[in-house]
Amino acid sequence: MQQIANYKSFSGEVKYFQHQSKACDSEMTFSIYLPKQAIEKKLPAILWLSGLTCNHENFISKAGAQQYADEHGIILIMPDTSPRNVGVAGADNDYDLGYGAGFYVNATQVPWQKNFSMDKYIIKELLPLCCAELPINPDKISIMGHSMGGHGAMVLALRHPELFQSVSAFAPICAPSQTPWGEKAFKAYLGDDRNTWLEYDSCYLIQQGAKKLPLRVEQGGADQFLAEQLKPELLQEVCTIAQYPLEYYFRDGFDHSYYFIASFIGEHMAFHAAHLACTD
Amino acid sequence: MQQIANYKSFSGEVKYFQHQSKACDSEMTFSIYLPKQAIEKKLPAILWLSGLTCNHENFISKAGAQQYADEHGIILIMPDTSPRNVGVAGADNDYDLGYGAGFYVNATQVPWQKNFSMDKYIIKELLPLCCAELPINPDKISIMGHSMGGHGAMVLALRHPELFQSVSAFAPICAPSQTPWGEKAFKAYLGDDRNTWLEYDSCYLIQQGAKKLPLRVEQGGADQFLAEQLKPELLQEVCTIAQYPLEYYFRDGFDHSYYFIASFIGEHMAFHAAHLACTD
Repeated sequence: MQQIANYKSFSGEVKYFQHQSKACDSEMTFSIYLPKQAIEKKLPAILWLSGLTCNHENFISKAGAQQYADEHGIILIMPDTSPRNVGVAGADNDYDLGYGAGFYVNATQVPWQKNFSMDKYIIKELLPLCCAELPINPDKISIMGHSMGGHGAMVLALRHPELFQSVSAFAPICAPSQTPWGEKAFKAYLGDDRNTWLEYDSCYLIQQGAKKLPLRVEQGGADQFLAEQLKPELLQEVCTIAQYPLEYYFRDGFDHSYYFIASFIGEHMAFHAAHLACTD
Repeated sequence: MQQIANYKSFSGEVKYFQHQSKACDSEMTFSIYLPKQAIEKKLPAILWLSGLTCNHENFISKAGAQQYADEHGIILIMPDTSPRNVGVAGADNDYDLGYGAGFYVNATQVPWQKNFSMDKYIIKELLPLCCAELPINPDKISIMGHSMGGHGAMVLALRHPELFQSVSAFAPICAPSQTPWGEKAFKAYLGDDRNTWLEYDSCYLIQQGAKKLPLRVEQGGADQFLAEQLKPELLQEVCTIAQYPLEYYFRDGFDHSYYFIASFIGEHMAFHAAHLACTD
């Protein structure tokens, strides 16, 4: 992996990297935050998955998570939301499909199947690479995200629960098989057979008895996408039935923006720090 | 003034406004942060002036100041860095002249003199408007900024010291009459006579015995513009000679970005809170 930028930030450093991905047959970009404790010992890490149109930079420049990463001694890892500039026709046309909209699935359909494998990329390549190259304790990793990335965090945790200690999401797409953004992306990436969509649907995976991890969800009450795209009520329902350990916080008046994320990122960092046993 | 956006953020609200400016003969945009204490009483306020290419949004979405505004009970006001789309030929050509680069002066030269009067706009229009329309205590106002806006904060405080309780700057352009960004802008906005530039040069105004206000300056050691554009050593020198109360902090390894600002905004907010007597 090649460092392309380096910024001192709070006690530590923000770094941007590029590396070659086999899963995406492409160069991929990601960023990290290394708090100063990383000089002395291996630390827990949290993966952050961003939402539609975002890249490796939005979260680390807007959410204000670094101060809490310092407080708890946690490394942050922020992948891009898709491969970029891989020559797929139409991949730049829509904000909710293609570049910036990988949806954390492994595409099976032409023209996406060669490059759009974000599940495989993050789980099989990015995490192992970070654990090999950075002072990360591989037994202490959690995952969180926003909107499309909240869906991604939940789905990756439900599909690969052995890798994570806890999962959280801001305004996640809870039931992508049943809502417009998800339906559009899944149809393109996975095809017309809706059965293939279910392995990337948090509600379905919880219904099916996925292994339990501590889950926190934050949802703004003035979120413009709440009713049509996010449907947290479906997540609450399946979690209740499956006795899945969901902590759900509804925040009156907050919308879908980074102003919402920044307001509660401290609570999410503390949630993960507790489950990563950062006081050990 | 017309509200164009409203975001719940931390304890309070971020709002974007537009209003008609006579000084700039143009519609102007600005943002504010109102902490929850504003519901109950008049609060102190801090004006933030942004740097080149920025608008009313960069600081409030990236610096993480809201948590400290909450802590101290301070309103934040963030103007845009210039008028926009006023039909001045060439105003969009360069990142360091025209739109996004008002330099906080009152332009006297064609084609800028009709619209580019940011000093007059902020002092005579924006501040009075905010004091009239928002729960601000007009006797408790401070000013801070970054780069071009650090220059702006110092120059406005030095030119209008009766309006402010304290001033601070991140990586300010300290001697714009003697450095390339400042020379280019001042020549365009103010003309060839360098004597006219001096009334917007912090070092000159301090040398001339401007009324003293508490001043804090933060400068990153890895700032890519430090040697050529910023020249804090000239500011330190004139402050020493004039016994101007400068607190200067050199931060090894930090660059010119918002990663730097976010790392020390808490200290700047506390500095102003102390001088605004926020514990009263």
